[in-house]
Amino acid sequence: MASITSLLSAEDKKVTAEALQGSLVDLLDLSLLGKQAHWNIIGRSFRSLHLQLDEIVSLARDSADSVAERAVAVGVNPDGRARTLAEHTHLHQFEPGYLDDGKVIAAMTDILESIVRRMRERIEVTEKPDPVSQDLLIGICRELEKQHWMIQAQR
Amino acid sequence: MASITSLLSAEDKKVTAEALQGSLVDLLDLSLLGKQAHWNIIGRSFRSLHLQLDEIVSLARDSADSVAERAVAVGVNPDGRARTLAEHTHLHQFEPGYLDDGKVIAAMTDILESIVRRMRERIEVTEKPDPVSQDLLIGICRELEKQHWMIQAQR
Amino acid sequence: MASITSLLSAEDKKVTAEALQGSLVDLLDLSLLGKQAHWNIIGRSFRSLHLQLDEIVSLARDSADSVAERAVAVGVNPDGRARTLAEHTHLHQFEPGYLDDGKVIAAMTDILESIVRRMRERIEVTEKPDPVSQDLLIGICRELEKQHWMIQAQR
Amino acid sequence: MASITSLLSAEDKKVTAEALQGSLVDLLDLSLLGKQAHWNIIGRSFRSLHLQLDEIVSLARDSADSVAERAVAVGVNPDGRARTLAEHTHLHQFEPGYLDDGKVIAAMTDILESIVRRMRERIEVTEKPDPVSQDLLIGICRELEKQHWMIQAQR
Amino acid sequence: MASITSLLSAEDKKVTAEALQGSLVDLLDLSLLGKQAHWNIIGRSFRSLHLQLDEIVSLARDSADSVAERAVAVGVNPDGRARTLAEHTHLHQFEPGYLDDGKVIAAMTDILESIVRRMRERIEVTEKPDPVSQDLLIGICRELEKQHWMIQAQR
Amino acid sequence: MASITSLLSAEDKKVTAEALQGSLVDLLDLSLLGKQAHWNIIGRSFRSLHLQLDEIVSLARDSADSVAERAVAVGVNPDGRARTLAEHTHLHQFEPGYLDDGKVIAAMTDILESIVRRMRERIEVTEKPDPVSQDLLIGICRELEKQHWMIQAQR
Amino acid sequence: MASITSLLSAEDKKVTAEALQGSLVDLLDLSLLGKQAHWNIIGRSFRSLHLQLDEIVSLARDSADSVAERAVAVGVNPDGRARTLAEHTHLHQFEPGYLDDGKVIAAMTDILESIVRRMRERIEVTEKPDPVSQDLLIGICRELEKQHWMIQAQR
Amino acid sequence: MASITSLLSAEDKKVTAEALQGSLVDLLDLSLLGKQAHWNIIGRSFRSLHLQLDEIVSLARDSADSVAERAVAVGVNPDGRARTLAEHTHLHQFEPGYLDDGKVIAAMTDILESIVRRMRERIEVTEKPDPVSQDLLIGICRELEKQHWMIQAQR
Amino acid sequence: MASITSLLSAEDKKVTAEALQGSLVDLLDLSLLGKQAHWNIIGRSFRSLHLQLDEIVSLARDSADSVAERAVAVGVNPDGRARTLAEHTHLHQFEPGYLDDGKVIAAMTDILESIVRRMRERIEVTEKPDPVSQDLLIGICRELEKQHWMIQAQR
Amino acid sequence: MASITSLLSAEDKKVTAEALQGSLVDLLDLSLLGKQAHWNIIGRSFRSLHLQLDEIVSLARDSADSVAERAVAVGVNPDGRARTLAEHTHLHQFEPGYLDDGKVIAAMTDILESIVRRMRERIEVTEKPDPVSQDLLIGICRELEKQHWMIQAQR
Amino acid sequence: MASITSLLSAEDKKVTAEALQGSLVDLLDLSLLGKQAHWNIIGRSFRSLHLQLDEIVSLARDSADSVAERAVAVGVNPDGRARTLAEHTHLHQFEPGYLDDGKVIAAMTDILESIVRRMRERIEVTEKPDPVSQDLLIGICRELEKQHWMIQAQR
Amino acid sequence: MASITSLLSAEDKKVTAEALQGSLVDLLDLSLLGKQAHWNIIGRSFRSLHLQLDEIVSLARDSADSVAERAVAVGVNPDGRARTLAEHTHLHQFEPGYLDDGKVIAAMTDILESIVRRMRERIEVTEKPDPVSQDLLIGICRELEKQHWMIQAQR
Repeated sequence: MASITSLLSAEDKKVTAEALQGSLVDLLDLSLLGKQAHWNIIGRSFRSLHLQLDEIVSLARDSADSVAERAVAVGVNPDGRARTLAEHTHLHQFEPGYLDDGKVIAAMTDILESIVRRMRERIEVTEKPDPVSQDLLIGICRELEKQHWMIQAQR
Repeated sequence: MASITSLLSAEDKKVTAEALQGSLVDLLDLSLLGKQAHWNIIGRSFRSLHLQLDEIVSLARDSADSVAERAVAVGVNPDGRARTLAEHTHLHQFEPGYLDDGKVIAAMTDILESIVRRMRERIEVTEKPDPVSQDLLIGICRELEKQHWMIQAQR
Repeated sequence: MASITSLLSAEDKKVTAEALQGSLVDLLDLSLLGKQAHWNIIGRSFRSLHLQLDEIVSLARDSADSVAERAVAVGVNPDGRARTLAEHTHLHQFEPGYLDDGKVIAAMTDILESIVRRMRERIEVTEKPDPVSQDLLIGICRELEKQHWMIQAQR
Repeated sequence: MASITSLLSAEDKKVTAEALQGSLVDLLDLSLLGKQAHWNIIGRSFRSLHLQLDEIVSLARDSADSVAERAVAVGVNPDGRARTLAEHTHLHQFEPGYLDDGKVIAAMTDILESIVRRMRERIEVTEKPDPVSQDLLIGICRELEKQHWMIQAQR
Repeated sequence: MASITSLLSAEDKKVTAEALQGSLVDLLDLSLLGKQAHWNIIGRSFRSLHLQLDEIVSLARDSADSVAERAVAVGVNPDGRARTLAEHTHLHQFEPGYLDDGKVIAAMTDILESIVRRMRERIEVTEKPDPVSQDLLIGICRELEKQHWMIQAQR
Repeated sequence: MASITSLLSAEDKKVTAEALQGSLVDLLDLSLLGKQAHWNIIGRSFRSLHLQLDEIVSLARDSADSVAERAVAVGVNPDGRARTLAEHTHLHQFEPGYLDDGKVIAAMTDILESIVRRMRERIEVTEKPDPVSQDLLIGICRELEKQHWMIQAQR
Repeated sequence: MASITSLLSAEDKKVTAEALQGSLVDLLDLSLLGKQAHWNIIGRSFRSLHLQLDEIVSLARDSADSVAERAVAVGVNPDGRARTLAEHTHLHQFEPGYLDDGKVIAAMTDILESIVRRMRERIEVTEKPDPVSQDLLIGICRELEKQHWMIQAQR
Repeated sequence: MASITSLLSAEDKKVTAEALQGSLVDLLDLSLLGKQAHWNIIGRSFRSLHLQLDEIVSLARDSADSVAERAVAVGVNPDGRARTLAEHTHLHQFEPGYLDDGKVIAAMTDILESIVRRMRERIEVTEKPDPVSQDLLIGICRELEKQHWMIQAQR
Repeated sequence: MASITSLLSAEDKKVTAEALQGSLVDLLDLSLLGKQAHWNIIGRSFRSLHLQLDEIVSLARDSADSVAERAVAVGVNPDGRARTLAEHTHLHQFEPGYLDDGKVIAAMTDILESIVRRMRERIEVTEKPDPVSQDLLIGICRELEKQHWMIQAQR
Repeated sequence: MASITSLLSAEDKKVTAEALQGSLVDLLDLSLLGKQAHWNIIGRSFRSLHLQLDEIVSLARDSADSVAERAVAVGVNPDGRARTLAEHTHLHQFEPGYLDDGKVIAAMTDILESIVRRMRERIEVTEKPDPVSQDLLIGICRELEKQHWMIQAQR
Repeated sequence: MASITSLLSAEDKKVTAEALQGSLVDLLDLSLLGKQAHWNIIGRSFRSLHLQLDEIVSLARDSADSVAERAVAVGVNPDGRARTLAEHTHLHQFEPGYLDDGKVIAAMTDILESIVRRMRERIEVTEKPDPVSQDLLIGICRELEKQHWMIQAQR
Repeated sequence: MASITSLLSAEDKKVTAEALQGSLVDLLDLSLLGKQAHWNIIGRSFRSLHLQLDEIVSLARDSADSVAERAVAVGVNPDGRARTLAEHTHLHQFEPGYLDDGKVIAAMTDILESIVRRMRERIEVTEKPDPVSQDLLIGICRELEKQHWMIQAQR
């Protein structure tokens, strides 16, 4: 079957592929967990968090799309299927049922912090292999850190 | 913990809950598979399908949100976490890697047909227990059948 | 040649096909007659009716499109050709030439009433065979009844 | 004086008239009470509720308009005058003066629940007499139940 | 309970409170009566008046909101509940049922004239106590006088 | 009955009337046939043609409206009723049922070419009698020739 | 002082200058008279005509601007000062005071017809000297004839 | 003939009428002179002034419309015909032909200053007779003074 | 150097200048302090206040711009440089570092109240010298009082 | 290979082809030279010209696109490649490096005048062979003459 | 009190904090000085610079906001109070009173150049400690250098 | 003549100048070739590629503008004249005449790949001399690689 040619060397491509696929799993699972909380949250801060969680979901979806399209543009196939997410995610998973607003703040602060930590490592390792992918990850990281601050500030 | 009061009887609520949670799994997995094909598709019809798949993803995301918010509004907790999707989905799963455009058309036709078939059963069983949920499912079903036609017409 | 698969039984499909094709003829001819009056009307109420008739035309065109796309989505070929309309329409036809505003009000009131009467029958017969098509017809019927009131109120 | 012809039988029209006029009173009084709270609310949740109450008011006004225009379209005169509202409303009335945010949440939850309960009865009784009016009430009911959840979730 | 501090003296506040609460009753009842006519009007001028009445309703609702928010900003609680309107309104009340277009023009001309007359008195008495509230009332009065002209010009 | 005065001589008016009425029949039937294909088309180019056919329909509808309003502005009554279209159209008529995409391209190329050929004759004959109508026909002709190229380029 | 070079011969420039300056006077005075009627009209058709007159004023202002900018572009100075208008206009002038709606319809029909008659002469004489200016006048003429029809149709 | 009732006393109405009619003449002539300069200006500052003059024309037209509609709303007939403007204007009139940019700045500064001076007198005399009209004139005056500064600053 | 001519007497200009320059300092420092809190706020109400503070900043910036442009329009030079603000501000200054949400509510209530108090004095003293400036200050004052209420209501 | 059928005779097509291809070269090179000046201009009029040059570039690009699409619609292949432009352009070429604003005004005046001169010849020769192409060229010519005036007026 | 956790080491955080706080002071003072010139500028280039200065102010405000929010996101408290700006700014301060346009060009060129020089140093020092902050500063620097060119080109 | 000061050292400026001027030639010629194919393409994929090529042209034009403005901002004169493009381009040039869709896909894939290859070299060499220009080139490169994938995927 046809495939997309890559301008990266095999080694650079391998490093970039790992960084992008890892980011994709983080971001897609963030979008699912953000919606899970958006629907099941309960408490006095319901409305503020209900709205903010939707902003996080939008950020996660748009960033996931950019990361996946970057992957295919450098000749790597992104994988965002449910089973892949379930097996490879590093994110804290909510329990089913209602979610207390205070616990959502605490959990989402942790989730965002863990993603940011991995994004910063990916920024470091992609600098030489593919500065174009690195620049994309830097932009996404800034937005995630901003959301991390705005969730954490509500503790 | 606080919870949302339901105006439905226990039995009606159980039937409605199953219909809505089942729809949620169908729709969220459709959104993930739609994106998977949107990224990895290859072939002469690439651009037309790349764009149409994004319309299907938008439809799936918006419908999933409506269904989940309907669930919580009748006192039922929706569950859209990755593991839940992976374990409960009935949808045909794409192989990883590039996806030939002809195969995407065939697979997506099957996927949409299987969802529509289940949606029609849910429309039937919710008529008495909760006509408000039924009306939501009817509206979603019409859009899914329209996409089913527009994908299938390209075979 | 390829065709679109239908999820309806043969009998349900037949009933639904008749309801949708009948609606299509009613709505397309309404759009032509609405324009005919929009252009040829004359009298003190010219401007109000000229504008309102264009709203009716928009409603008729959008509804016709929805009905025809619903037909093909359930495996039925809609037919909106001029000869089909000329032969199958039940609507009162204007004479050629200028149309007095008072007569336009009276004639359009009758035209809308006759369509609504048929739409209500179609709503009844499609309930069991295809509640999705029925829901579409209900929505269109509500808008037609609203226009019927707003034309009639000017008598 | 002229009047609008009705396509409903006398009996069907009577049932439909009661359902629509009852809905109109509920919705218009909801719009007045929503504004009353929008202006006089006080407390830490002021801003969130001030904004959400305006969404409820918009929903109530738009729904009231649709219900009243549906009434006249089936030959029934809607009545939304102040005295009619004052005499026929079933809604809990706020005391004059400042309204504590916690009490607004509790009262508005009750108000919405009582309207929804009546709307569900109206949906049931209009199914046979006028499925077009029923469909309108179903759509409004879904939005009211959604607001009921989002207010209640803040308790 | 908490309350909003006022920068006005007790006497100035009393005068301003009366002017604003009086305006609120006038404007909210105007919005209800405007809708009542918008729905029940009948006659050759139906469409023009149906549309103009909705402009009056929008003006009345927006002005009522500004007036009530001005009241609470100077430490006064606005009261816009149905019973308050029913008991305190000075406006001519329409009979239930269809409303002839000529009579709507005549009645609405009177209603607007009576409100304008009271608004002009309120403008006079608030000049010294609260020029900020006066300026708001002047702006509303100009719009009401414009509508008064445009309704009256159709006699 | 009242009528619209014409600034054209009897002879000029006759020539102009024929050109405009002929254009109206061409354009309205183009709009009906464009929709017929928009709904019933099938094949690998489905989506591209489905969208392009809707652009042609929009062009046909807007142009028909301009032509008909031009006719009445010069004192001529346009006739766009279904029977008139059925009897006077020169356009190739599709068979009922599914339409293969390749055949739609071929047929629509012919349809557009035949209309353009007649439009060019109308442009020639209206130059002296009514340069204002001629200018309108020139503008429409350019758009039709553009669509003719863009359909034909897909053969 | 500097001036704008003209690409037209002296004779062609003279003919074009007269056509454009004559159009400018017609159009600017039309804009003033349209507003005069917009403000002072009275009668049952007040609202329809009040709105339509503003469309005529917009058309007149935009057309006047295009004509004047065309003049300076071919090296001719347009003159749109009040005294020039007062001395050179050929348009029927309204009496001061209220204007009955029927009389506005009759007068505006005459005004538009007289402008159209002169525009058609200007279209004829500019064909050879400056087809670019002619094309501008043709476009304006079409819009004026459309307004002429829509005013006259209300007689 | 019918007329619009006035809420002002005869004396107050007379003062207000003079202030509004005087403003109307100033503003309409400003709109004509602004366009005259917009078209005929020449010099290095052409583009900046060409654009700014159009802002002044928009301000003049909108303000004239508000002033005239205010007049009729208080029972006074505004007069904005060409001859009235030519005979009653106090504004400096440009010579025909090209206008040097420096001279446009100087002349427009004088024109705006003279209008502002009269507006300030009108603000003073209308305070008691009609504070609603006064408030309108204050708002217009502020915009005119702003344009006066921005033209003058370019000297 | 050139300067802007003033239509005010020396004495009136002096009073107006003080009122406008004082307002400018208040409003610009409000915009800086609003941003300071927007960035450094922390606590459960973070998101609501973070958003509301940005509305206050927008109001302060737009109002400052209007006030400064009014100053120069009456021949007075506004001064909004950092040192001028630092030396002349009367507003409570936040400590550096994180700001607790409760303290932000209390401090911002005081800040707005002190500005409103000074604005009301400026409204009083400018009435005679320059009613145009007074009208501007009245409009700004109303918005500030509204924000004062909406912040204070959260205590 | 496939090609687009032409409705023009061989001779008419040849004349039209030359006119359109000549226009294309003029317009594309105008777009390149407009950008060259947009970037390298220097002097006190920098900002005004920088902006105006971008308007000219937009006009040139849009017109070039219309001309090229017109060519292919009549069966002629447009050629807009860099070498074609370099070899066939008649336009004055700027020197590399900074461009003094006065010289840009002079040079752009000449460039536009030379294009207009050729456009007028093309308008003349295409009248009989293809009035549809002629009409397009007339419209473009008017815009170019307008820009010619607005650049020249700054000398 | 609560605080925002930082993912940076103490040393990296210190370097980043200095770069961001330094940028904040530069950008906020640029916004104040840009407005100071926007209001007080005088001369033939008034309008062009008045508008361009507002673009610079918008850039400065948006950039300041991004920089400050970046600071708090990495655990550093931004300080943008008036006294901080007055004491720490490095920017050239305008004299009070009117500002000649030529001097504004010269001074703003210097101001922008000095900020750019410091931004480039900050870009260098933040590369290792925080590439995310560095990327933000790079983006701001590009816009500042663009404004520096566009101001300087007018000398 | 005046010139723009550069903050770069002579050596850094030379490297940056070459990277930016090289990019400009690549991007402008891409815009010309994209349009050449947009007009002359023929084949079953006509419509998809016709639209996609216009996206590539928009990207090329916007990027060229950013690159050229970056050049002048660092004191380098960009050169985008037709002869410069013709002599310095490295891009594959299409033959004149119709272009088969398959060949357009192949050729455009090559064109984009060759540009991307040079952009990556420019990103490498500008890292030290001017990280601001480098960041701009990285952003453009990402968009070009995305288009490269989306064209290539259609082979």
